[in-house]
Formats: sequence, C-alpha cells, structure tokens
Amino acid sequence: MIMSVQTIERRNSVSQAIAEITAILEDRISIAQTVRDQHGKDTTWNPGHSPDAVAFVNNTEEVQKVVQICSKYEIPVIPYGTGTSLEGHITCPYGGVSLDLNNMNQVLEVNPQDFDVTVQPGVTRKQLNEYIRDQGLFFPIDPGADASLGGMTATRASGTNAVRYGTMRENVMSLTAVMANGEIVRTARRAKKSAAGYDLTRLMVGSEGTLGVITEICLKLHGIPESIAAGVCPFPSVKSACDAAIACIQMGVPIARVELMDSENLKALNTYSNLKLKEVPTLFVEFHGTETGTREQIDTFSFIAEELGGGPFDWATKEEDRGKLWQARHDSYWAIKAQVPGKESLGTDVCVPISKLAECVEETRLDLEKHGLYGPILGHVGDGNFHVVLFCDRDDPVEVRATEEFLDRLAMRSIAMDGTCTGEHGIGSGKRKFLEAELGSGVAVMRSIKQALDPKNIMNPGKIIP
Amino acid sequence: MIMSVQTIERRNSVSQAIAEITAILEDRISIAQTVRDQHGKDTTWNPGHSPDAVAFVNNTEEVQKVVQICSKYEIPVIPYGTGTSLEGHITCPYGGVSLDLNNMNQVLEVNPQDFDVTVQPGVTRKQLNEYIRDQGLFFPIDPGADASLGGMTATRASGTNAVRYGTMRENVMSLTAVMANGEIVRTARRAKKSAAGYDLTRLMVGSEGTLGVITEICLKLHGIPESIAAGVCPFPSVKSACDAAIACIQMGVPIARVELMDSENLKALNTYSNLKLKEVPTLFVEFHGTETGTREQIDTFSFIAEELGGGPFDWATKEEDRGKLWQARHDSYWAIKAQVPGKESLGTDVCVPISKLAECVEETRLDLEKHGLYGPILGHVGDGNFHVVLFCDRDDPVEVRATEEFLDRLAMRSIAMDGTCTGEHGIGSGKRKFLEAELGSGVAVMRSIKQALDPKNIMNPGKIIP
Repeated sequence: MIMSVQTIERRNSVSQAIAEITAILEDRISIAQTVRDQHGKDTTWNPGHSPDAVAFVNNTEEVQKVVQICSKYEIPVIPYGTGTSLEGHITCPYGGVSLDLNNMNQVLEVNPQDFDVTVQPGVTRKQLNEYIRDQGLFFPIDPGADASLGGMTATRASGTNAVRYGTMRENVMSLTAVMANGEIVRTARRAKKSAAGYDLTRLMVGSEGTLGVITEICLKLHGIPESIAAGVCPFPSVKSACDAAIACIQMGVPIARVELMDSENLKALNTYSNLKLKEVPTLFVEFHGTETGTREQIDTFSFIAEELGGGPFDWATKEEDRGKLWQARHDSYWAIKAQVPGKESLGTDVCVPISKLAECVEETRLDLEKHGLYGPILGHVGDGNFHVVLFCDRDDPVEVRATEEFLDRLAMRSIAMDGTCTGEHGIGSGKRKFLEAELGSGVAVMRSIKQALDPKNIMNPGKIIP
Repeated sequence: MIMSVQTIERRNSVSQAIAEITAILEDRISIAQTVRDQHGKDTTWNPGHSPDAVAFVNNTEEVQKVVQICSKYEIPVIPYGTGTSLEGHITCPYGGVSLDLNNMNQVLEVNPQDFDVTVQPGVTRKQLNEYIRDQGLFFPIDPGADASLGGMTATRASGTNAVRYGTMRENVMSLTAVMANGEIVRTARRAKKSAAGYDLTRLMVGSEGTLGVITEICLKLHGIPESIAAGVCPFPSVKSACDAAIACIQMGVPIARVELMDSENLKALNTYSNLKLKEVPTLFVEFHGTETGTREQIDTFSFIAEELGGGPFDWATKEEDRGKLWQARHDSYWAIKAQVPGKESLGTDVCVPISKLAECVEETRLDLEKHGLYGPILGHVGDGNFHVVLFCDRDDPVEVRATEEFLDRLAMRSIAMDGTCTGEHGIGSGKRKFLEAELGSGVAVMRSIKQALDPKNIMNPGKIIP
C-alpha cells in the first residue's frame, strides 16, 4: 500500500503526540485495539470510529498537558465518560486521543448550607447521590443511565424529573474546563446568581466537548423531600393523558415527575414484568413535598384525571412500593427490547411545546404504523419531550433506510411544531443534519464561536456543527 | 478649532450614517441635544456620554437596517429600553446611535397551555403582567423598576422572587436578535428544553447589547398562586436572619421572596412611612401555594424564626395588607434617599454563597462605619445577593474617592468569598475593572467571543469586556 504524504505526516504526528503523552502518563495511555474500539462506540447503533489512543487522566493539569500536546500536533481530543451517550458524541471520526476521565471520580467539596457540591467529571450521578444522602441532600437529574456528571454536563442531560428541577442547564452553577488553547477556565464563582459578563457556564453546558474538556463541576443540590408519593394512572388516549399533565401544571401542582407510556409500552411491560396494567396510555407520576402537600397533590391529580376520563389513580408513598413502580418504568427499555430479540436498538428523542405534544405523539404513532415500524413511545410529558425506541438490523439496507427516513420525519415534524430535534440526547454526530432546519442563521453563530475558541478544530471534531 | 483628520473622517461617517438612517426612519431619528443627553445617562451617578443620534425603531427589520448602516460606517449601536440600568449600560462613550426600542411594545403571542409569551423588547414587566393577569398567569421577575423586558433580558435581571422563580437566565426560553453583521438570529425554538447545540439564548441573556440587539423575547410564565401570604419578622442579628432563610430552604420551604433589611433601613422606613417597626435586622417574606400550603409554610417559618431568637412573625394573606407591606419594602429606596437630601444616590450589588452572606454583610457594615459612609443594606437573602445604597456628591473629590474605594473593597470582598461583583445589576461600564479578578482567564474567552461575533466592535462598545 502506498500512503499519501498527508497520511504519513498525520501518522508521524499522531505517533509523536502519543510518545509525548506517554512521557507524562506512563502506563495510563493505551493503543490496544480493544480499548480503542470500546472508546469509539456509544450505546446506540452508531457504528463508531476508534481513537488512535486512549489517555486515562488523573487531574486537570494532566488534561491540560494532553490538550497542549494535541494542539501542538493538531490531533483531535475526544472526552470520554461512561460512553452512554446516544448520538455518537464520543466517536472519533478523525482518530485522535480519547480522554478517559473515569479516574477523576472524586467529590471535591460539599457545601450543605449553600446546596452545592463540586465534583470531578468522572463522578456518576448515583455515586454522588450515595455520597450526599446522609446530609439530606440529593441531585435530581436522572437521564436513566448512571452517566458521569461530566458527560451529563457536556450533553446538557435531563430526564424524568426535569419538569420540577430543571435540566443540567439549570443545575450546573459553574465549571472548570481546559479550553482548546490549553487555558484552564473557571466559568463562574460559587454565587447562586451573577450578572458578570457572558454566561460561560451555559455556553459550556451542552457543548459536547467541542469547546473544551470539563474537569470540575459545581452542581446545585436539593433537599430530600419530607414526603414522596408516586402512582400510575391509565387514560383513554394520549391526548387526555397530556391534557392531565397540562392541567396539573396550570393548577400549580409542583409535579416532580410525569411520564407518559403508550399502549405498546404497557404491552411490553406486562409481558416482561408479569404485571397486569391496563394496556392504554398511562401516566407514571411522582409528587414531592410535605405529608400534607403530597396528599393535596394526589387529590388534585386524581380529580383532574377523573375529569378527563382517566383513572383510577393507583398511588403509593412507601419507598418499597414506589421503588417497584419506577423499576417498571426503568425496565421499560428492556421490556421493549425483549419484544425484538437480536436487533440493535436505537433510542431517539424530540421535544415540542406541551400544547403540541399529543398531536406530535399521535402523528408519530401513525407514521410508525404506516411504515410497519415497531417503536414504543415514552415521554417526559411535563416538558413536551418524548422518546421513540426503534429497532434495526444494520445489515438490512431496507430496514436501515426505513428507520432513517422515519427519524428524519420525526425531527422535521417536531421542528415544524416549533420544537427541537432533540430535547435531551444532544446533536453529537447523528443529528447535525437537522441543526440548520431548527436554528437557521444561529448555526453560523455557533460556527463563529467554535472557530474563535478552537481554531484548529481539535476539540471533538465532527460533532454539533454541520 | 483645528480638527484632526480622524475626527473629521469620523464626523463625516457619522453624518452619512445618520443621513442613511433618516432616509429609512424619516422623523423617527433625533439629533436634538436634550434627546441625546437623556439617552446617554442611566439612573445612577455615572455621568454618561450622549450618542450622536437617537433612532426610534418600530420593528426587527428597521433594527437590522440601522445595524447594517452602522456596521458599514463602523458607528456604535447602543440599545436603549427604559434607561433604568445601574452600571452605565446605555451610555455612549464613543458616540454612535442610541437605538430606542420603546415603540416595539407589543405582546406578540400568549400560549397559556405552554406557559409562554412572546414580546417585543419595549414591553415592560408591569405591562406584561397587566396583559396576562386575566389568564391566571404572571411573569415573576421583578427588579424594582418597571424596566423593559428587552433591557431585563440584556442585563440578566433578577429581583425579589428569584429565590423561587429564578432570574432572566431561567425565564427566557428563546429570543430573536439582530447580530453585529446584520443577521437576524432566533436562538432557540419554543420547546421547554433542548439539547441542540450551543446555548445561544443564555449567551445573549446578560450580554448587555455587546453581541446584538434583542428584538423579540419568548418568556416562561407561571400560574398565579391560589394563595399568597406575606409578613415581616424582626431578628436579633443579621446572622440569625440569614440563618432563618438558610434553614427554610434546607427544610424545603418553597419561599417565594425573602428580603433582608438592616437596622439603618428600618430607621429610614419608620421615619419615611410613619411606621413603628422594630429597628433591627428584619426579614420581609412571601409564600406562594395552596391555602394549606402557605399556612404550613407560615408555621414552619414562625417555628424557625423563634428557634433563632427572632419574631414575632407578623403576616397577612389579604392582598391589601400584603400590598402595604411590599409598598414599604419598595419605598425603602425613597425612605433612604430622604435621609440624605440633595445628594446623588448610587445603588450597588454583590452576591456571595449564602453561607457567607451574614459575614459579608457584617464586614460591609463595619467598613461603612469605619469610613463614615451612610449606606443601608438590603438583600435578597435566599440568593446571597445584597445591595448597598450610597450617597455621594460628585463635586466633592474626597467623598467621591471614599465612595469609589468602598465600592472596590465591597466587590473584592465578595470575590474573595467566592462570590461575584454583581448578582443582578451587571457589569456595564462601571464594573469592568473587577471582571479579571472574578473570572481570570474566562475574560479572554469572553473577548474571543466578542471579537468573533462583533469584529468591528460596534455593539455597545466599552461595556463588559475590560
């Protein structure tokens, strides 16, 4: 094989970069094929590309040194947490160094009076919640997977109780990042609010590693509520279930979670978990507050559900019973997967104004039926955000095409309803093609920022910017 | 007088720009001295600089045309709302065109089911609340002045009930802006959350007109609570008052407002409003919820206050009584001003982690006493944000120097406590000198973004970036 001059030069510079990084990290850099492959592929059907090497860093200064070396040789740097992202965020289409941040897993400082905590990016959300539970505090964002908080920050993660507690956008107070030029930047101080200049924190939250590597995060915490109540409530239609959620919010019920599962979901769940739930659109809800408060919320919700033809509302306040309920909700992915053995699954998400949610879900359901696709729908109704879980055989070009066309229609349908092609999964490499349709000239602004802060395009190239 | 070639060239280009703008706006551009002076000075002691002309625009397209003309001639564009900002945001140190947005005062679209509203930037917060009250909705951000929502967005405004409802950061869903290159950008769509690329909305919120002119804003709305209760509670010390606020939050009381006034404030208030409140540190609080909920919050708060040596807690749920209470709170500025007739007032603000608030307030109080300055302190305790109202005679260089030195110490004290030099007033031209101390290398990132998006530095030059 004859290699081009460019290829030889690239290989040489990659080798030099790896040699320089090895001088710093010693045995904490790997070029083993299995390690590289594992770091190039996320949990979706995205085929993935491997990095040239994987560097296991221990602290901010090591991140800085690796970034400086990669900048010198113009080699891509791709931050890696738990690899549970869903749009190819951690894949390495141009090779480079995957920066594994899992060794950086220390909780650095808890300030119970200020309701904040500072963590390294490799701390996972479950690890954090274990750590702070004794102090009566919790961190609410729950995207399902036990993701790293660095990854959750980088992808602006969200989840089941965002309706009450917000997303990573609202819950990151400040962060430290190594920028493309090797500078260490702390985006804000620990004050709860600030009007001091551009909101660099929010710029980095959701930047998917394309502007810098996040190495410390200061997060907002919340007090564990005195009382938690949860329940399931069947509805005659997706519309009535959505209307119930809207009415709740309208009446000021501070609902903590409100999850819609469609009838396909319920069917799968009954089979998988041996349950006897009605196979109709169903809301899984949770209320947080005082004893009196949650009781009042339950009464209001029950009343609303009944008015809309739903119910009965089956609820529980005991932790064990609530545990079972949310276990069923969290099992839904496996329940669905069990219906389609042997195929690769593919979760996608969109988000529309709540008033459009029922319409969007219904149209999507008809679209699935029309094209013979199996895809249960579940959604965070309070936010207008929903997921479709699809299955596809990568080796079947007809199926791949049908799936891709469905995904395109779903994204464009949401955008047409003044929504977004992704409520919480992110753009990664998978959804770049929708960004222009969604944000028009805003994409040029993003591109200008990217070019200004990363002129060599070394930070996670091939993501977000089309 | 002999003018330099540069001055002549500048004058010519300003005249040409004004001529071209006049061709579009006809009589809606003014070069009258009084109009220019009025648009160059905010409500603080900042002496201000006048623009070369004031353009009264009616819509986004006119803003775009004015920006395009100013870009062609490299003339500054300074957006102007109600002129109630406090750090010289609207002053025009390099002349240019002040863009008066008050004609753009339409509420464009209310979506009650989605709890959002789209407004033009000249709509004020009171005007908006009048408009939506019938639908059982309200917009919570209340910075005191009846500011324009465009200005509030541009300065990331906040206020008394941010502790519960957040600031403009959390309540702007998306916005439309004319960028320095004349492009019209809509930063996001109407979905409640999105993970689609960089958070351009948050980048523009708080950018103080230095990146673009905001011409439409989509805001989050909230349901008017079923029950509102408010009251005053005296405390033996600033510390015990702060501890009461912290304990409330820790116990999960969703307190809507919690305002600290120090004894100086109370003295002024008693004199001004003929009240008989105890002249000790006092909390003004407000609770929102159901009837049962607010009653429960009152009980919890009373219990906490008593435990900390405070009380009795005097509360009211009738709108008339609550009105009187908050009137007193809002009168505090005038009450203080009446103590120092004939001097210019000067409000400043800082924000620290709540755990540091009592210490910061106490140190600031001692600092004022030591330097013989009169400066009542009032604060949004739930956020760690507080204000000092100072008085100064511009013509007395000794007093000016003492005031400026106090302001420097206050900002640096807050930064040393891991806080910010401004919680809600913004940087403007007045606080640029503290930005490096607060954010270090973050300032270089801001500068890069500014240069990338406004390479000719025409958008409100001389603000934010030191």
